[in-house]
Amino acid sequence: MQISAKAIADLLGGKIEGNPDVLIHGPSKIEEGQVGTISFLANPKYEHHAYSTKASVLLVSKDFVPKAPVYATLIRVDDVYASVAALLRQFGDQKPNFQGIDKDAFVEDTAEVHAEVAIGKFSIIGKNAKVGQGTIIYPQVYIDEGVVIGANCILYPGVKIYKGCQLGDDCILHANVVIGSDGFGFAPKPDGSFEKIPQLGNVIVESKVEIGANTVIDRATMGSTIIKAGAKLDNLIQIAHNVEVGENTAIAAQAGIAGSTKIGKNCLIGGQAGFVGHIQIADGTKVQAQSGINKSIKKENTAIYGSPALAYNDFLRSYAVFRNLPDLSKQIKALQEEIKHLKASQKAE
Amino acid sequence: MQISAKAIADLLGGKIEGNPDVLIHGPSKIEEGQVGTISFLANPKYEHHAYSTKASVLLVSKDFVPKAPVYATLIRVDDVYASVAALLRQFGDQKPNFQGIDKDAFVEDTAEVHAEVAIGKFSIIGKNAKVGQGTIIYPQVYIDEGVVIGANCILYPGVKIYKGCQLGDDCILHANVVIGSDGFGFAPKPDGSFEKIPQLGNVIVESKVEIGANTVIDRATMGSTIIKAGAKLDNLIQIAHNVEVGENTAIAAQAGIAGSTKIGKNCLIGGQAGFVGHIQIADGTKVQAQSGINKSIKKENTAIYGSPALAYNDFLRSYAVFRNLPDLSKQIKALQEEIKHLKASQKAE
Amino acid sequence: MQISAKAIADLLGGKIEGNPDVLIHGPSKIEEGQVGTISFLANPKYEHHAYSTKASVLLVSKDFVPKAPVYATLIRVDDVYASVAALLRQFGDQKPNFQGIDKDAFVEDTAEVHAEVAIGKFSIIGKNAKVGQGTIIYPQVYIDEGVVIGANCILYPGVKIYKGCQLGDDCILHANVVIGSDGFGFAPKPDGSFEKIPQLGNVIVESKVEIGANTVIDRATMGSTIIKAGAKLDNLIQIAHNVEVGENTAIAAQAGIAGSTKIGKNCLIGGQAGFVGHIQIADGTKVQAQSGINKSIKKENTAIYGSPALAYNDFLRSYAVFRNLPDLSKQIKALQEEIKHLKASQKAE
Repeated sequence: MQISAKAIADLLGGKIEGNPDVLIHGPSKIEEGQVGTISFLANPKYEHHAYSTKASVLLVSKDFVPKAPVYATLIRVDDVYASVAALLRQFGDQKPNFQGIDKDAFVEDTAEVHAEVAIGKFSIIGKNAKVGQGTIIYPQVYIDEGVVIGANCILYPGVKIYKGCQLGDDCILHANVVIGSDGFGFAPKPDGSFEKIPQLGNVIVESKVEIGANTVIDRATMGSTIIKAGAKLDNLIQIAHNVEVGENTAIAAQAGIAGSTKIGKNCLIGGQAGFVGHIQIADGTKVQAQSGINKSIKKENTAIYGSPALAYNDFLRSYAVFRNLPDLSKQIKALQEEIKHLKASQKAE
Repeated sequence: MQISAKAIADLLGGKIEGNPDVLIHGPSKIEEGQVGTISFLANPKYEHHAYSTKASVLLVSKDFVPKAPVYATLIRVDDVYASVAALLRQFGDQKPNFQGIDKDAFVEDTAEVHAEVAIGKFSIIGKNAKVGQGTIIYPQVYIDEGVVIGANCILYPGVKIYKGCQLGDDCILHANVVIGSDGFGFAPKPDGSFEKIPQLGNVIVESKVEIGANTVIDRATMGSTIIKAGAKLDNLIQIAHNVEVGENTAIAAQAGIAGSTKIGKNCLIGGQAGFVGHIQIADGTKVQAQSGINKSIKKENTAIYGSPALAYNDFLRSYAVFRNLPDLSKQIKALQEEIKHLKASQKAE
Repeated sequence: MQISAKAIADLLGGKIEGNPDVLIHGPSKIEEGQVGTISFLANPKYEHHAYSTKASVLLVSKDFVPKAPVYATLIRVDDVYASVAALLRQFGDQKPNFQGIDKDAFVEDTAEVHAEVAIGKFSIIGKNAKVGQGTIIYPQVYIDEGVVIGANCILYPGVKIYKGCQLGDDCILHANVVIGSDGFGFAPKPDGSFEKIPQLGNVIVESKVEIGANTVIDRATMGSTIIKAGAKLDNLIQIAHNVEVGENTAIAAQAGIAGSTKIGKNCLIGGQAGFVGHIQIADGTKVQAQSGINKSIKKENTAIYGSPALAYNDFLRSYAVFRNLPDLSKQIKALQEEIKHLKASQKAE
């Protein structure tokens, strides 16, 4: 599908500045914009990309005053985000090609499934489970007894949700996500073997949460493991029992959070980062990829780095010296030699 | 469900010390005990938690002599572990709500499946496979040809077991675990491409092993990849071909063990730790999270840390200086200045 | 199955040197060879293993001139790799025990499926999808609309491929692999919440690619995430949107590559290594396990190590000093003392 800048402007009720005939085949991130794509600028923090993006069309607020030349055709709108959402409906058809409950799906009689849902083949909805309006459950999904799923969720193939877990509205769970597996809880016995501690809690995923493929969220020992509204989790992430992830916190792939740790809201967690259990991470914490966080972060908006993690700049400064350690070592040896000579010459005097 | 301390004591044949009427709604770990829960103290190593736990009831040995005030109601029993097991049966109903072989499961004629099993919808039991008494296989599980599964195992939805692998008794495999995928074995060819080396061995998982969601255990090139009795593996772990994991070793999430490495018994491996291939790790080794182990550990009960790993205390000492490196670097510069002055003043004399 | 060296030589048209009656029950890697196995030597780089291997038979080029005693029986052949392939067909029967489209599989009418395929129970082939000759799709696999799968591929149970992704010929995807899940793309909104950026591209996996169990490859935001011919990916790997992995590059388990990064060809990436987004890695780069690569590598065949990564030898040299830092710190303190004394004695003079 190709669409002209003018057609988009008409669709959004926006005003064009620049070439109205330029053709667009899809959206792009402003920093990754390519010719033939439309990007948007909503957060002033990203304004500098407006001057370098290769996107052909840029959706901006009607109040936007460029501080440098912009090569893209501009479309000015009242509400950039609302316009983006409208555009996505044009370009990003995420709807599956099936509707209703497939004849090869299995839904228990006691499950409460809204009339407007899609449930694919070989998927199972357990006893007393609930599925809200507009939710799409792809094939080969397993929803155990008593699970509650809100409205307008998408569960991709192979998602497995254990007994009694809950999802809010507008959640997206990618393929093979596991929600509610047992936490890793064992009591050591005197003979060195382990006694399993039953994991009797559940997982609560609030609304507007997206969870990447093959990510695992364990159920709480008691109470709930909680992923708060708007949090975004990438692929292959480990969330242990009794963890809490705050609102609008984003966690990159392969990060892991050990038991009972509470991550604040609006945090940005890099890939492969790891958190020990039983710590608290303040709101707005930024964690560099591969960092290892072994104690609580109390001050909001702290940036940290390293394993174990230090303040971001401290780590960088220490690492700069680390790179230079062989030379430093030589300098120390040279100093020792110098002092030996100095002492020798002092004695000689 | 709520139950009084007295009712629990009666159930276990134990003696109460403290308030018999306090109500309990579930169990807890002693170090995470909350009001309304029952914890237990079996291993003397954890005794200090008895004096700080918030659990309302504490299950202890009849011989337990407190060394400080205990706020919880005590229930004294002959065998703490046996009592815990009895309690779990009260609180932790892990039984699925299905029995027998579901009509939508598929079991090959040549498979030997015990009469007392549960096999869920859309699960497959391959040719000549064996499933022991009391084993529960959730829906959407795949058991390939010749796989042997012992008694009283639980396989959660989406588990996939390749041809010829073996599980002992009392194993728990969480959702989407993969057992027996090909090891990562390729011979480089002169043109830079790779020739696949066939992976002809299998995986043997002994009894009482628990394996977390989305963990992968590769089959051996030849012979067997072996997970010994009582080992506990968390989620998203990688076990490569021909690895051995010793008895009662616990491995936290996202750790990875490269090919042919042998981990001893009673080891504790932290999350995201990584082991190179072809090394041996002594019994009782403790590996800190995110450590990278690139050589064998010969001495038992060693604690290690860092990437590459050092002795635990050595790493901490080195890292303490690492944090201080920018300052150290300045001190060296200052020393160089001082020596320059000393030399200058010596010459001047 | 056991087979004599002589029978193998006859099969391959090779010449025997040594005991023709030694019995072989399977193949092995030359460095892991065991009695009763056959190994091969094709790449001269591995020649030293020929003198230490415990394999009973060694397949070598007709031109091979040993530089030391070889204990194995030799079989000399014209083309070692072709002979290995022939042997694998003897020993490594990878064929599944099912053929054709199972009655419990579901194939959309509009899908183009070659007559010679195997598609297992509870697998789904979506609208307009294509499956090439000789491809084996195990049970419980999901192939979405418009997916193209080449010839002679093997898709193990639980593989999920999202809409519009493509596989070449001779690919192997292990259990629970996910191809084409949404990239992790979100635009931050002023209130701290995120707007999902639609992921409209796909994944292209070229021919002769093997992908390990539970590995995830995200679809591109726009365009394609590309895994080039001959690349080998181990288990639990994360490949983000718009990444490219070059020809014959091998990536070990649990490594992660962030968005838009391009990895060259013939690279060797260690386990748990991580790459930030938007960088380029030159052909032949060797990345040590657990390394963190945060900038482009421009020079081919560079070896790197550490997090953040340095040149391999530089990291080792720095780390050698790191291990010694507590001592270095003491030496600096000693130097400071010495200088204090020197200054004092100078003044005293």
